Amino acid sequence: MSNPLPSLLSDRLHLWRTWVDDRLADYCRFGSGCPKGLSDAIRYSLLAPGKRLRPLLVLSAAEACGCDPEGGLPAACAVEMIHAYSLIHDDLPAMDDDDLRRGRATCHIQFGEGVAILAGDALLAMAFEVLATDLPTEIAGECCRLLARAAGPTRLVGGQADDLVADKEGTAVDLDRLESIHHRKTGALLATSLQLGATLAQAGDEPMSRLETYGLRIGLAFQIVDDLLDWSGDEQALGKRTGRDRELGKSTYPGVLGVDRSRQRAQELVQQACDGLIGFPGPTDALTSIARYIVARDR
Amino acid sequence: MSNPLPSLLSDRLHLWRTWVDDRLADYCRFGSGCPKGLSDAIRYSLLAPGKRLRPLLVLSAAEACGCDPEGGLPAACAVEMIHAYSLIHDDLPAMDDDDLRRGRATCHIQFGEGVAILAGDALLAMAFEVLATDLPTEIAGECCRLLARAAGPTRLVGGQADDLVADKEGTAVDLDRLESIHHRKTGALLATSLQLGATLAQAGDEPMSRLETYGLRIGLAFQIVDDLLDWSGDEQALGKRTGRDRELGKSTYPGVLGVDRSRQRAQELVQQACDGLIGFPGPTDALTSIARYIVARDR
Repeated sequence: MSNPLPSLLSDRLHLWRTWVDDRLADYCRFGSGCPKGLSDAIRYSLLAPGKRLRPLLVLSAAEACGCDPEGGLPAACAVEMIHAYSLIHDDLPAMDDDDLRRGRATCHIQFGEGVAILAGDALLAMAFEVLATDLPTEIAGECCRLLARAAGPTRLVGGQADDLVADKEGTAVDLDRLESIHHRKTGALLATSLQLGATLAQAGDEPMSRLETYGLRIGLAFQIVDDLLDWSGDEQALGKRTGRDRELGKSTYPGVLGVDRSRQRAQELVQQACDGLIGFPGPTDALTSIARYIVARDR
Repeated sequence: MSNPLPSLLSDRLHLWRTWVDDRLADYCRFGSGCPKGLSDAIRYSLLAPGKRLRPLLVLSAAEACGCDPEGGLPAACAVEMIHAYSLIHDDLPAMDDDDLRRGRATCHIQFGEGVAILAGDALLAMAFEVLATDLPTEIAGECCRLLARAAGPTRLVGGQADDLVADKEGTAVDLDRLESIHHRKTGALLATSLQLGATLAQAGDEPMSRLETYGLRIGLAFQIVDDLLDWSGDEQALGKRTGRDRELGKSTYPGVLGVDRSRQRAQELVQQACDGLIGFPGPTDALTSIARYIVARDR
């Protein structure tokens, strides 16, 4: 499989991504007690080639708030664990019933449904163990609180439940409901990645609020680009089936605004996100690079 | 449905159980963002009549270590959330495929498989949100660490994965492997309940180690009694199908030791657990009452 981020991110972000991948692999070295089938499934999903967008947001936000990004690695990995868990469970037959993810068989196709459910459960618990074990005591609890809220019934899981109902109903979802689902399913975890970075740096209210605005903008841009890729993307490059939203009759940005206006809207949002990156104690070039990558990506 | 703890526990434990039930209900009041189908499924499973054994262990351990038991309610509820999540996922068709739990339809029978998976996921995240939000900062991280480890791939989820493989293989499991599965699936969370109580009280090494021994003993007794109830228990009183272990060819205590010696072994373990309850700064009568309840229960 080709590298999912060919040349769109800065060299430094590429380096950070290798840090994240190495640390994720470290966290998958289980002692006795973890059956081989389960650890294989966890590794298969967590260490699969991926953008590592959320971990990079944690490290970039930490740096912008004046903190050494390397100290953000446990939180970066915890967020990726939550992301990986949510993909495994979303792909299950009782949910989106997907058999292909990042160009490979989904976890339940590869390991069976029972093991896939358990691998997702394990990753969810591991995220909190990593935060609580590897972060300083004074911020560990707050980071657990932020991540648990993002993963919980009013955000990630709530969005997925609404999405599930919408799919089962088979009725068209209007753009407002689509945005509400997206905001909880994807936006909340992107925003929390930034908040975790800021919390590690014990940032004040102003950087936190600027990061929140940046997060809302790139989150929406991310969703528009996802819709565009599903609408017209290359199935092989994406490594997953495309056109599913249209098949399911879901409202999407290109469906409602058209392809050109959707693309334009995503570019405006990213420009606004970058323009708002002022008044931080540390460098913000990593945040800029990630925002630009979000509209330029082709998978 | 009748009260699951008729008269076997002390009045104080009954009172504590109403505290736990009230607090659990409070934690199920979601704001907007949690779809009704999901919150119904969470409440259905979490608030179902139950023994609340793990929450009572948290409060009893806190009291034995010299802490006001009421302060242990967030941790008590968090442990019950992990327990409820594990029951929902264990009952799924891809796992144990059970349709009856505590005398009622299991979560996926009542709400569908997708919603049941999500309700379990939500409860897992909620447990950490409760710990991280409602405990004092200086212990929140440590409590999250203990609970995450107990719920993770080497304990709760690891035990369930081994159990799943054993079921699918359809081969008899020897008593050593059965104990290893049990120790991770049930024993770890019972032991963690006690550790959480001790952590809340910021107990020293000696009470912690005495509680660990108590936990191992009542955990094993609990499993033996579970096996005995499955072997000869009343399906209606238990509210679930019995005889499944035998059908599946699983090794069990009555199968290996016989019914009488199994019962005797459980009683010895409980006596030893009670005899070891010395040298605590606070009262230990709640821990004694719970231990005695474990062998006397009929469901």
